[in-house]
Amino acid sequence: MVEVILRDLDPASLRARAGRWIESPRVQHAIVFLIVINAIILGLETSPAVMERVGPALRLADSLILGVFVVEIAIKLFAYRLRFFTIAWNVFDFIVVGIALIPASGPLAVLRALRVLRVLRLISMVPKLRFIVEALLHAVPGIASIAGLMLLLFYVFAVMATGLFGQQFPDWFGSIGASMYTLFQIMTLESWSMGIVRPVMELYPHAWLFFVPFILIATFTMLNLFIGIIVDTMQTMHEAEHSRDRSLIEQRIEAEGGAIEDEIRGLRAEIRELKAALDRGRP
Amino acid sequence: MVEVILRDLDPASLRARAGRWIESPRVQHAIVFLIVINAIILGLETSPAVMERVGPALRLADSLILGVFVVEIAIKLFAYRLRFFTIAWNVFDFIVVGIALIPASGPLAVLRALRVLRVLRLISMVPKLRFIVEALLHAVPGIASIAGLMLLLFYVFAVMATGLFGQQFPDWFGSIGASMYTLFQIMTLESWSMGIVRPVMELYPHAWLFFVPFILIATFTMLNLFIGIIVDTMQTMHEAEHSRDRSLIEQRIEAEGGAIEDEIRGLRAEIRELKAALDRGRP
Amino acid sequence: MVEVILRDLDPASLRARAGRWIESPRVQHAIVFLIVINAIILGLETSPAVMERVGPALRLADSLILGVFVVEIAIKLFAYRLRFFTIAWNVFDFIVVGIALIPASGPLAVLRALRVLRVLRLISMVPKLRFIVEALLHAVPGIASIAGLMLLLFYVFAVMATGLFGQQFPDWFGSIGASMYTLFQIMTLESWSMGIVRPVMELYPHAWLFFVPFILIATFTMLNLFIGIIVDTMQTMHEAEHSRDRSLIEQRIEAEGGAIEDEIRGLRAEIRELKAALDRGRP
Amino acid sequence: MVEVILRDLDPASLRARAGRWIESPRVQHAIVFLIVINAIILGLETSPAVMERVGPALRLADSLILGVFVVEIAIKLFAYRLRFFTIAWNVFDFIVVGIALIPASGPLAVLRALRVLRVLRLISMVPKLRFIVEALLHAVPGIASIAGLMLLLFYVFAVMATGLFGQQFPDWFGSIGASMYTLFQIMTLESWSMGIVRPVMELYPHAWLFFVPFILIATFTMLNLFIGIIVDTMQTMHEAEHSRDRSLIEQRIEAEGGAIEDEIRGLRAEIRELKAALDRGRP
Repeated sequence: MVEVILRDLDPASLRARAGRWIESPRVQHAIVFLIVINAIILGLETSPAVMERVGPALRLADSLILGVFVVEIAIKLFAYRLRFFTIAWNVFDFIVVGIALIPASGPLAVLRALRVLRVLRLISMVPKLRFIVEALLHAVPGIASIAGLMLLLFYVFAVMATGLFGQQFPDWFGSIGASMYTLFQIMTLESWSMGIVRPVMELYPHAWLFFVPFILIATFTMLNLFIGIIVDTMQTMHEAEHSRDRSLIEQRIEAEGGAIEDEIRGLRAEIRELKAALDRGRP
Repeated sequence: MVEVILRDLDPASLRARAGRWIESPRVQHAIVFLIVINAIILGLETSPAVMERVGPALRLADSLILGVFVVEIAIKLFAYRLRFFTIAWNVFDFIVVGIALIPASGPLAVLRALRVLRVLRLISMVPKLRFIVEALLHAVPGIASIAGLMLLLFYVFAVMATGLFGQQFPDWFGSIGASMYTLFQIMTLESWSMGIVRPVMELYPHAWLFFVPFILIATFTMLNLFIGIIVDTMQTMHEAEHSRDRSLIEQRIEAEGGAIEDEIRGLRAEIRELKAALDRGRP
Repeated sequence: MVEVILRDLDPASLRARAGRWIESPRVQHAIVFLIVINAIILGLETSPAVMERVGPALRLADSLILGVFVVEIAIKLFAYRLRFFTIAWNVFDFIVVGIALIPASGPLAVLRALRVLRVLRLISMVPKLRFIVEALLHAVPGIASIAGLMLLLFYVFAVMATGLFGQQFPDWFGSIGASMYTLFQIMTLESWSMGIVRPVMELYPHAWLFFVPFILIATFTMLNLFIGIIVDTMQTMHEAEHSRDRSLIEQRIEAEGGAIEDEIRGLRAEIRELKAALDRGRP
Repeated sequence: MVEVILRDLDPASLRARAGRWIESPRVQHAIVFLIVINAIILGLETSPAVMERVGPALRLADSLILGVFVVEIAIKLFAYRLRFFTIAWNVFDFIVVGIALIPASGPLAVLRALRVLRVLRLISMVPKLRFIVEALLHAVPGIASIAGLMLLLFYVFAVMATGLFGQQFPDWFGSIGASMYTLFQIMTLESWSMGIVRPVMELYPHAWLFFVPFILIATFTMLNLFIGIIVDTMQTMHEAEHSRDRSLIEQRIEAEGGAIEDEIRGLRAEIRELKAALDRGRP
């Protein structure tokens, strides 16, 4: 990946040398180590007792590590310039580190809690984790249209539920948003009957005609979405082995056939020899 | 699909031209666009705040779009006459548009909420969504007998539950309908123990002898129903690839065999030549 | 099945004729029809309102149909004698009909509710349903040892839970039976946290060390039990197709090889001819 | 397994004889029998009523059986010396028997409840159960990195949840530990909405933006983890059959090829003969 980016650079240039250095195993391992340390620090910061005792030290360490991350990304930006953003994982790193630099006060206080997303950089740094996440994301496009169908179903059922039960049960079905959340809860089967449908049925005795089909359709569609992923993943994983099998059979056939062809060539040679002998023997 | 219907028509006739026009990509895209607009309008209509401000405008737009849909279906009916109803998706369109034309007042007020079903026409208009739904429905016949078994089990368990617990727990097991609903809830594992079985066990301590086997049988049968769908879908999807594999191997064998046959034919030709040489050489 | 039983009988004997008559499609369809009618009657009997009006008539019809079932089984017993019991479905029929003949009063009043099991005879009469149930039961032996492991785990965890939490939570963990029921509930994930583990953790803060591993182990084992069924069923279903594939490839290889062998035989014949010509041509 | 350990011993030595005796089927069956008896005794000890009547007798029997187990392990230690610990199941036996020897009083009273773990020795003694557990454990390494990803996700979401909701909902999100437990509960979908998220949303209306993605990510990752196990197990089980198929095809090809090669060798022999005849016939 990196090789592709660095290929066109003069290998002796400062940019190329900076890129090679930041991607060297030694620096990469140091970054992984800092991410783990940072994860522990961010965990400790959630404890008021710990913060009271060593709060300033933790904050300082946190800032220092964040500084290292910023420098790391700055070096990469210097080395690869805008091509830096052509790799999705770089964009991911850029965003999670960037979040920590936004002053988290006032309406943005929630961003403080998002600083821990930095720890997810472990995924982009450890090849095994990156491979899994890429495999998971690989299954997404194949199921996009089922997800679209799911969304359409949710919207239609939510509009219907809002129209049917919205006035009597505003907490659950007061708006399309509330209805979609409640239908999501019902699809996960959480308290769908005792918590939602039985109370609704006390006012609308036929409400089960709406909810039972919804559960059957939603869980059935979800199941097919999951089967889609399963089949996709299995096909990808089996493909390699399968094609290896096939080529093994082909090789056997070819080898076998080759042996026979060799035999026949030997035969032709002998016949040619025979013909030559005859020609010689002839007066 | 449409081609099949239009094939027997005089291509210059009005019917044929109307059919081609209504199925042309330009008109189809316009209809899809109107469905999306309609979906948004129907969603906005659920909000009292929005209705207070722009209610009349929304209702007018809704009526206009409904009018377009009616005209669209009327044109199709004109073009294909009764063959229109031979395509299931046309019937689906006809019903969901028809629902909106029934005056939704008095006992039929519930139909107002069903108007949003019109949005499901997206499925019949977008080929990818239509393909998924057809694939899902394709799995249904194969599992019909397991569904029948499921229904039989539900009925038998519901009659038993009504007889056993109906008098003491009329809300849950007072009638066969109530029992079937409660057993459906138990099968989804929602509050089955804390909500239903533990209270029942306070009066009938051995009630678990009824409910635990029911849960095991119902979820096991459901699982097998799901496996049926999985196997069905996977077999259909793998079939193509599998048979391709097979024919590739066959081609390799044939090619290999062909090469050998060519060699041997060359050999025979040479021997024939040898024989001819001998004949010539003989006095 | 029936043919096997009847094979050794003198086809003209009364027993053989009775057996053939009771298994004839006409009688079988009549029995299926009576089972369906009986199912409806048993359903109606659960409604007090219906019973008040037409109770005696329903009871009479129920008794008449039961009489027909008894006569049917009596004829089969006459026709096949003790070999009747060698077919598991006959034993099943015998038991579910027999239950209705036990006077359901006093401590046996619960048997009244079991009379509806008669309706399950539909499974033994409709070949498609019988096939499914036999397929489901077919998967049982293959998973017997996982089920045994499951039972062992439940027993061990139940004894531990009784020892650990029995005194403080007698309702949930007061005895091994109560603990096993509660652990079964926890395995189905029903109210495991809010209903059981959080209250327990208020007294024993480390209780999650017991329950979280139990959930992981129990659901993981259950999953593997389910996979066992899936693999089993799929293997059985795919086996036929797979072996057909294999034999097709073998046939291609053989056919190809056969063609080459034919070529070579032709070659040998020609060479033999050449040798004969030489011999003839030699002085 | 045992054979490997005993191989290097002088077969006549006391150690070897002790090892052979303790592993002989007769002794093994006696141990299995004692484990089952012990399981029943440990079960009975949980009942106060039973303990009141025959408590001392049960305790005595329990101690005797424990004594037998200790002697059994001592003999094995004598026979195999430190190589005893090279077999994981021996270590398992050693630990579960050892637990019962620790005086269970004061802070260690919880160990009394762990004595029943001894019953799990059934797994190490019954080959079929041992095979299943080894198969289950076999699937673990393949899914280690997904489990690692899962843990990372849990940690990151737990730190975020503690930061976001910890102050207002200390019971659920007061510390990282509490948050991880609550998120585990949410992942199992137990009371996630009615119990946790709806109350949280009363204070933080946008909390669903945190929880709904978490549910989707966590259950999706879990599903892929399960698929990993499924594929792994299926691949292992199918491998044998698959490779048998392949080798059968190869054999067919080889056999076919072999027949052709034989034909060609016969041909060469005949041509060589022909050449010899020509040489002889030549003056």
